[in-house]
Amino acid sequence: MREVAVIGVGMQKWGEIWGKSFRDLFAEAGHKALLDSGVDHIDSMYIGCMSGGLFAAQEHIGSLMADYLGVTPIPATRVESACASGGVAVRMGWMEVASGLSDIVLVGGVEKMTDINGDEATFALSTAADTEYEGYQGITFPGLYAMMAVAHMAKYGTTMEQLSAVSVKNHANGALNPSAQYPFTVTMEQVLTSTPVADPLRLLHCSPITDGAAAIILCDVETARKKFNKRPLVVIKGSGQATDTIALHSRKDFTTLNAVKISAEKAYTMAGLTPKDINLAEVHDCFSIAEIMATEALGFFKPGDGGPAAMRGDTSRQGRIPINTSGGLKSKGHPVGATGVAQIIELASQLWGEAGARQISSPRYGLAQNMGGSGGSSVVHILERK
Amino acid sequence: MREVAVIGVGMQKWGEIWGKSFRDLFAEAGHKALLDSGVDHIDSMYIGCMSGGLFAAQEHIGSLMADYLGVTPIPATRVESACASGGVAVRMGWMEVASGLSDIVLVGGVEKMTDINGDEATFALSTAADTEYEGYQGITFPGLYAMMAVAHMAKYGTTMEQLSAVSVKNHANGALNPSAQYPFTVTMEQVLTSTPVADPLRLLHCSPITDGAAAIILCDVETARKKFNKRPLVVIKGSGQATDTIALHSRKDFTTLNAVKISAEKAYTMAGLTPKDINLAEVHDCFSIAEIMATEALGFFKPGDGGPAAMRGDTSRQGRIPINTSGGLKSKGHPVGATGVAQIIELASQLWGEAGARQISSPRYGLAQNMGGSGGSSVVHILERK
Repeated sequence: MREVAVIGVGMQKWGEIWGKSFRDLFAEAGHKALLDSGVDHIDSMYIGCMSGGLFAAQEHIGSLMADYLGVTPIPATRVESACASGGVAVRMGWMEVASGLSDIVLVGGVEKMTDINGDEATFALSTAADTEYEGYQGITFPGLYAMMAVAHMAKYGTTMEQLSAVSVKNHANGALNPSAQYPFTVTMEQVLTSTPVADPLRLLHCSPITDGAAAIILCDVETARKKFNKRPLVVIKGSGQATDTIALHSRKDFTTLNAVKISAEKAYTMAGLTPKDINLAEVHDCFSIAEIMATEALGFFKPGDGGPAAMRGDTSRQGRIPINTSGGLKSKGHPVGATGVAQIIELASQLWGEAGARQISSPRYGLAQNMGGSGGSSVVHILERK
Repeated sequence: MREVAVIGVGMQKWGEIWGKSFRDLFAEAGHKALLDSGVDHIDSMYIGCMSGGLFAAQEHIGSLMADYLGVTPIPATRVESACASGGVAVRMGWMEVASGLSDIVLVGGVEKMTDINGDEATFALSTAADTEYEGYQGITFPGLYAMMAVAHMAKYGTTMEQLSAVSVKNHANGALNPSAQYPFTVTMEQVLTSTPVADPLRLLHCSPITDGAAAIILCDVETARKKFNKRPLVVIKGSGQATDTIALHSRKDFTTLNAVKISAEKAYTMAGLTPKDINLAEVHDCFSIAEIMATEALGFFKPGDGGPAAMRGDTSRQGRIPINTSGGLKSKGHPVGATGVAQIIELASQLWGEAGARQISSPRYGLAQNMGGSGGSSVVHILERK
């Protein structure tokens, strides 16, 4: 299989975007990525979207977006893996270019979540859990992650302060990101005393409801070197995807994200790297406990040390392994289908040295981890600056 | 890229299946395909599903189905292209095996459409059209295809009898298919006098609402030859995918299915074949007019000759190019996400010589054409018996 480069990126400022529709958001991000890359055509397109049906009463998203991006009649495929839809779309695009079937592929992600009310959005998101055995019993995602947090606290002594340190750090990063939905800092005190949502999780431990899109252009390395060489070459060095039981109650242990672990192992193996080689990571902090568990499952910290590591500052921009320099889902926002694509944008920007005020010093390897539901699916990509 | 074989298939009798849930349907078809192929594992899985959200209040379908098929932690990805979701899933599975990333991949499709009422199902299906410019104005799919039928009649003189001949032929085939939802014959008189739905289309020109799933196992040819050689080798010789505007009103001509034409040209080119080489085809007859237009766009008949060809019997099991020997969407049923996968099952069964009472004499090349919306997306596969 061929090596694949990221040669262009595009997104808008995320938030409650009432002036742009579902299709507008995607087309805007797509056009920005096309312009940024300098390509004169694309061969194919993938779109990550969790629930066009429930959020926007719109399926057939491949046809819609190819139409509104002005790129028909190319193949355009929508992929879904709940909140990991964007990451899985990246994997599909990578596979298509790596296989030799296409040379230039656009991968985008989009979700328009604020056109329905809060109750409806909570219901739509709950369809990422096991509808028959979880959703219909009344539990939604804050409750599921609260149970994971309680289990992690009971087993490892993880504290409210440790959970809150994740939110404080991600908002500190997001405050430097012009695309972030909530680009402001929060204090430990503010997080600890914010409105309770599902005990022990409080509002500032939870990622928000967001409208937004993100897009990247993938290209085989040979063509990228020849035609699109205005930046350092950034390639996808490893890709791993895995599943776990969709329902939390089917797992032996609530404190381990097995799909994350397995998808990471696959990506490390493909890349010939270990967790120690990684210079920064974007991880799926849909709730603060998720970041702690993900950093453990990815091998950055041993089980139970994810919370203390956040408190020590190991995951800050100046720390041993900066996590979510973009602000993460918490501060940047979480338009579910777009999140996994935006993670790649942050890594590419950092590897290109274009991350502005939040730039870390010359990273070589970046890792993105995107997760569906309560960890029922996970996809990991490792990027390298050549 | 490597050549890819179809080595196992599975589905259940389709219909209003009130005793089995969304997940049960998929797991049943998947298990049958696994047993039929004789594989001891799969490396990855794709699931075609149009709207798990609106039909079954369930997204995150990759995780759910991997869980209930008992194959976690393998990668499992749901793909959507409205009623072409199944065909696009086949293309993804083919690409993964052809690329060398995996050797054995399960591709399934599923839709559970009768757990909501008729109004809700009509709405869910309408999200395959342009929601903002078509759906919200009140038009649904029978109306869209009725406009295409009227345009085709006006331009080419296509008649009600020609439209109806398609339904008569497909029910004659479906009557011989144990998996068909409506396995009975209908007469020309019955079709012509059935309940009007959207003028000129009557009930027996329309495919039904269906519960069902279908699954196939794909494998690289080398492994298939070595380990799974109980049947003649059937390979995917060509794959093509294309898009068109999602809204009908954006097209210059209502009588031509451009995405079908382009996806077919790509598949013919990859296979090194022409329409004349094809011995049978499964095409997307969501409405009888769609079969007529598809047989023209695929190059089997010249524009305007699709209707007369159906009347002449050219598309019957004994005709020049048998179309929809399975009974098609009309008689076999149309669980939208599963349809494209079931088309491959019919082709493989015919190429293996296992199609029972509806077997045609020793075909070598079969073509499957699966379409989304009013032709906003199309995917074509060509299979060969080696």
